[in-house]
Amino acid sequence: MITSRSKRTISLFARLPGVGEKTAQRYLLYLLTAEDELAAELGRELVELRQHLQPCSLCGNIAEIETPTSTAICAICSDVKRDPSLLCVVARVHDLLAIERAGSMRGRYFVLGKLLSPLEGVGPDDLPIERLLARIQKENVQEVICATPPSVDGEATALLLKRELAPLGVTLSRIASGVPHGGDLEFADPITMGRAFAGRQRL
Amino acid sequence: MITSRSKRTISLFARLPGVGEKTAQRYLLYLLTAEDELAAELGRELVELRQHLQPCSLCGNIAEIETPTSTAICAICSDVKRDPSLLCVVARVHDLLAIERAGSMRGRYFVLGKLLSPLEGVGPDDLPIERLLARIQKENVQEVICATPPSVDGEATALLLKRELAPLGVTLSRIASGVPHGGDLEFADPITMGRAFAGRQRL
Ligand SMILES: [Zn+2]
Ligand SMILES: [Zn+2]
Repeated sequence: MITSRSKRTISLFARLPGVGEKTAQRYLLYLLTAEDELAAELGRELVELRQHLQPCSLCGNIAEIETPTSTAICAICSDVKRDPSLLCVVARVHDLLAIERAGSMRGRYFVLGKLLSPLEGVGPDDLPIERLLARIQKENVQEVICATPPSVDGEATALLLKRELAPLGVTLSRIASGVPHGGDLEFADPITMGRAFAGRQRL
Repeated sequence: MITSRSKRTISLFARLPGVGEKTAQRYLLYLLTAEDELAAELGRELVELRQHLQPCSLCGNIAEIETPTSTAICAICSDVKRDPSLLCVVARVHDLLAIERAGSMRGRYFVLGKLLSPLEGVGPDDLPIERLLARIQKENVQEVICATPPSVDGEATALLLKRELAPLGVTLSRIASGVPHGGDLEFADPITMGRAFAGRQRL
């Protein structure tokens, strides 16, 4: 017999990815018994989360915004030491963060948000190709690295990029499949990630 | 490259049990991109969590409190349909909730909070034995079921209860070890849990 408030907290936790009823309950009990201030601290952080963190308007990475009206530009897009002529296209922010952890990439990013997936009904028009093309031209990008995952959808997306970017005369490369087929970029170690970038092939 | 606010949120999430850096980051990205209202809802819930939920002053279960000054009494301790003569002693609230899910227990509970553990320096004086004895006498408990886990520390705690409760003349039983040795009550299925209660042995 558990209180209605506990149930509410548990069901909110259980909406996080990979969190079931038991894990959610474990979090709740920990917050109730273990660390005095953690629940309130985490709570305050989450209440304001989406007012302070938003997708970067240029690349889709997480960006911190100062005032509610300001445009979100992430730390990578505003870093002048980044090579503006090199643009790495990824499926998700998770992948961008994984590549950043490995430290193999000196350029900037573009997050597609999703992959081309005929099976799931995701077509070319569902991807932000227009925004990608506009950015390449506006920032005079010379090389685009396609770092979509080595899966069926990832390869399909790479081929779509090849077709769409052809008229621009930009060099398009694809990260080497050091990452195992069907694998997830997020769990690749820095060496695998480094090899994948070093061995990239021209598409 | 991730913002300082993201880092703070990630490090707070990573203080939850079993949550590492990558899981914490996954939660953050989900909250930033997937469900508009979830971050704020969960945040509001957590900010006030410990003002509304506290350990029951009688048994240690989670109790909802109405006003900040009221004493926390859980739904089980205040349920008149529960058999007051039967008291089940458990190590943790997790175990109480697991037993409740299985529905084998018609009495009330007493949460020790920890187990006797010579190796970890937990001695008899670290357990709330006085409070347990007082509750048994005050509520005229007839049978105490010891539902500590079937581990070395759980058995040691059961033997401590046997010694401490002997002068009271109360019936003390131990749940049958249907739960595998070294196992965790929390992951026992209802049938195993039911058998463990049905086959309880007098200590
Ligand atoms: Zn950006
Ligand atoms: Zn209680």
